[in-house]
Amino acid sequence: MKTTLKTLILNCLLASCFITVHGQDFYASQRASWLQKAKESIPQLTVTEKKPIGLVHIIKDENAFQQYKAEQTAPINTLYDNSFKETKAVIVDFGEHITGSFSFSTELLKAEADAPARFKLTFGEVPSELVTPFDPYQGGLSRAWLQDEIVTMMTMPSTITIPRRVSFRYVKIELIATPPGYDFCISGMKCDAVTSAVNTPGKLSAATPQIFKDIDRVSLNTLKECMQTVYEDGPKRDQRLWLGDLYLEALANNYSFKQYNLTKRCLYLLAGLSEYNGKLNATVFETREPKPQAKQHLYDYSFLFGVTLKDYLQETGDRETAEDLWPVAKKQLESAYQYLQDDGTMDYERASREWWIFFDWKDGLHREVAFHGITAFAFKETYELAKLLNKENEVAQLPGLIKKMKKAARKHFYNPKTGLFTGKLNDQVSYASQIWMILGEIPTQKEAQRSLKALKTTENVCTPGAPYLFHYYIEALIKSGMSQEARDEVAEYWGGMIHKGADTFWEVYDPKNEFLSPYNFFPVNSYCHAWSCTPTYFIRKYPEIFQK
Amino acid sequence: MKTTLKTLILNCLLASCFITVHGQDFYASQRASWLQKAKESIPQLTVTEKKPIGLVHIIKDENAFQQYKAEQTAPINTLYDNSFKETKAVIVDFGEHITGSFSFSTELLKAEADAPARFKLTFGEVPSELVTPFDPYQGGLSRAWLQDEIVTMMTMPSTITIPRRVSFRYVKIELIATPPGYDFCISGMKCDAVTSAVNTPGKLSAATPQIFKDIDRVSLNTLKECMQTVYEDGPKRDQRLWLGDLYLEALANNYSFKQYNLTKRCLYLLAGLSEYNGKLNATVFETREPKPQAKQHLYDYSFLFGVTLKDYLQETGDRETAEDLWPVAKKQLESAYQYLQDDGTMDYERASREWWIFFDWKDGLHREVAFHGITAFAFKETYELAKLLNKENEVAQLPGLIKKMKKAARKHFYNPKTGLFTGKLNDQVSYASQIWMILGEIPTQKEAQRSLKALKTTENVCTPGAPYLFHYYIEALIKSGMSQEARDEVAEYWGGMIHKGADTFWEVYDPKNEFLSPYNFFPVNSYCHAWSCTPTYFIRKYPEIFQK
Repeated sequence: MKTTLKTLILNCLLASCFITVHGQDFYASQRASWLQKAKESIPQLTVTEKKPIGLVHIIKDENAFQQYKAEQTAPINTLYDNSFKETKAVIVDFGEHITGSFSFSTELLKAEADAPARFKLTFGEVPSELVTPFDPYQGGLSRAWLQDEIVTMMTMPSTITIPRRVSFRYVKIELIATPPGYDFCISGMKCDAVTSAVNTPGKLSAATPQIFKDIDRVSLNTLKECMQTVYEDGPKRDQRLWLGDLYLEALANNYSFKQYNLTKRCLYLLAGLSEYNGKLNATVFETREPKPQAKQHLYDYSFLFGVTLKDYLQETGDRETAEDLWPVAKKQLESAYQYLQDDGTMDYERASREWWIFFDWKDGLHREVAFHGITAFAFKETYELAKLLNKENEVAQLPGLIKKMKKAARKHFYNPKTGLFTGKLNDQVSYASQIWMILGEIPTQKEAQRSLKALKTTENVCTPGAPYLFHYYIEALIKSGMSQEARDEVAEYWGGMIHKGADTFWEVYDPKNEFLSPYNFFPVNSYCHAWSCTPTYFIRKYPEIFQK
Repeated sequence: MKTTLKTLILNCLLASCFITVHGQDFYASQRASWLQKAKESIPQLTVTEKKPIGLVHIIKDENAFQQYKAEQTAPINTLYDNSFKETKAVIVDFGEHITGSFSFSTELLKAEADAPARFKLTFGEVPSELVTPFDPYQGGLSRAWLQDEIVTMMTMPSTITIPRRVSFRYVKIELIATPPGYDFCISGMKCDAVTSAVNTPGKLSAATPQIFKDIDRVSLNTLKECMQTVYEDGPKRDQRLWLGDLYLEALANNYSFKQYNLTKRCLYLLAGLSEYNGKLNATVFETREPKPQAKQHLYDYSFLFGVTLKDYLQETGDRETAEDLWPVAKKQLESAYQYLQDDGTMDYERASREWWIFFDWKDGLHREVAFHGITAFAFKETYELAKLLNKENEVAQLPGLIKKMKKAARKHFYNPKTGLFTGKLNDQVSYASQIWMILGEIPTQKEAQRSLKALKTTENVCTPGAPYLFHYYIEALIKSGMSQEARDEVAEYWGGMIHKGADTFWEVYDPKNEFLSPYNFFPVNSYCHAWSCTPTYFIRKYPEIFQK
């Protein structure tokens, strides 16, 4: 049996030429047409003029999210009607999260403009961004992501448009160089908001509890803001397509805006920008020419291409695209084959040296078990896709491998006493481990329920750090038949953001630590982040759980 | 006689309806056509691409102008060939003073751009501007005149063009937000330099001493930089037409670029934007719509309109324009008539409450004598213009007034013992007083020489503060037959700026105080200023003095 498996795997590897000669393109015959198809699917952005709704003060409030809240102080006309030379600084509220091109205008009140003025504009998605000093900057990402810009207005009246696209609800405008010789007011401002989302999602059942209506609305806003010429991860930061975010955005889109062409574009873009050896890059850039970010290979993300393709096929029936891109989905499996050992376990130690294995933004998370789980999940999902395309024969080995892996996981990771899955290398009990064992269909439904419940009563459990893993947690709960728990967790986690004033869902949300940042500075977190948008998928896919 | 003069003046005033009803436009029949002619004369700007010549360090040097000098350190390719992520900050030298649109480009060196970068650019006309901290700003003009701009480059490779027009020789580029994930270089930069000067001035005599060749060259550069769609006062600051600067620029232009259409445009613009009561505004703006700066009436500047018009007529023979604008020149005289007293002196005390009487940027300068002098000068020059246009009858009173004023000045201001002119109100001995008595033709040539010489041996003389008055000083020396002194003073004063490294002549230059600023902060001074450009006029008008 051992020899058979080994031979099987070796044959797979050789057959698909995983080890390519440098410079020889595994997808040579298809790459150009994939990139062409990606280009042809670039969606039109719709532009909507947005106007501010009022002025706010950002005030300290221990009970508010990150200890700051915006309090409406005056209608916007208060700004337009008065000397800005006297006002000097305001915070303007647009009433909703917006992504687009911001401009503001001035008018003279007294005398002619005989000297330039200078303004500092600070755009914030959440109140704390408007009042937290950005400098000296200690964050781990580029300081330039922070949305403060200084502009010089050489003459008045005039209008200045900020060159960068901004993503915000609030904008602080400060006069930082006051011309002594004349007086003026800010006479208007607008943001030309952009999105590629145009369809209107269906209405929820009237019986839907308010909290799920709210969560659905904010999910849709989040997704809409991220839908640009690709599914971006976050319109403030990083403004680009990531494989992991794509999967979740496509899921949510399937149940809401149903703009399948954007999913198609992103799949083709990622395929067209894959490595010559066949591996997908986890993130790509659109400008100037489409290009991948080199050396960004996420083991877990790479399999989500096939899963997204399978969902896309099921939603659209677009067999042509699915067949066209099938080789990419299949090819990713080889990243798993190489670590699969004779005993059905994976060589996690080697893989963790060779890959970025993500799963979650969570310091201290041990990923060995989840690594095994997602591999089984990938095999299962890809085999499903193969079946839809009548290509089972190309991956005939998968059912056998899944079985083998299941057996090995139960033997090495499952603790029948506690009902929990833990690693061989580390006995950490984590949500990630249980979730990915369940999504990989290792435990029975009963065992799955037991493990998920045990998480609540076990000490020192490694909890999810970001909404990304929380999505898979809800998926695992539903898969395990724990509808009520899924409902409660969505209401508590995403509802928690709603209660804290979220207009869009956040990249990072730990209810116990609102200042958590993977980048060492919470204002550089994204507060409108694709991977948080999936409640709309759950709410709309499972009306029996959420819409009653 | 007293009664006669009084009646004469009163008749003048009434005849020309100086006291207009509010809203009734003295130039109603002509204003629109003047503005139209100003518009039709807008010159084409020529654009020349300028490239930097090298990198410099700005180093402290007690002997250098404002204690800093630029020292070439490396060719410009050193910048282009190396990582700017490592370099972080450079000062680039364009080798000459430039006014225009600056842009710079980046190229990737390693990995793809996954985050924005941010740059601070500081443009300087002189070395000290690059190293003197601008903040906390204590200057008296808008901080925004200082040419430092912060820009965010959202992706690379790309090119950013600074929105404002800049005026500089040196540009400091600092990387103030470093993206951690990739490396890049600055791959190029340029400035699209603009000017409306296109003609090439004639060559100086080969025998011209080098210092006058240099002074002529820098004068021409200064004028060229100020020649835009109007004669600007300074391309860095204030970037607009001032009557006093216009006069000197037109003078210099008459002997160099000979672009008379620009003079014509400026005269029409000032006429078209004059007050309804007929008074000229001292400064006007071109954008968006041409408009005057309200309440900027300079007594001495207002007469320079007529003088410029007279010179223009003599240079071009364009009688149509001169006749068209004659009413404006004539009308300005009324500003003088109202202060002229029966005894032939002027009511300076009242005038100084009602006008900005400029003459020079010089604290403590007493202007009573110069006020009298420029009035006589204005009467004389305007009468000359009238004669050229055969309109003496319209200002027939002028010769009588001039005679009266001369007599009064000699009586009240001239001290035969010292040979110097001093005021009734204050016994200050100033250059300004002697200069304007001479230009107003109060003293004989012999007396004029004596007074100018006495300035050099008298204690506590109030010296000129800015090149503007220095121009009139040279004019007075030449008028008084003191050619050698005129030559020496040009060589010493403007030559002094040359020796201190001037690429263009400065707004303010006191050889004894290089940090002098009328705005309380020397970096906000203009270092390319129209009113300093007149040596080219002297050198070319008087070859027998300067070109041998």
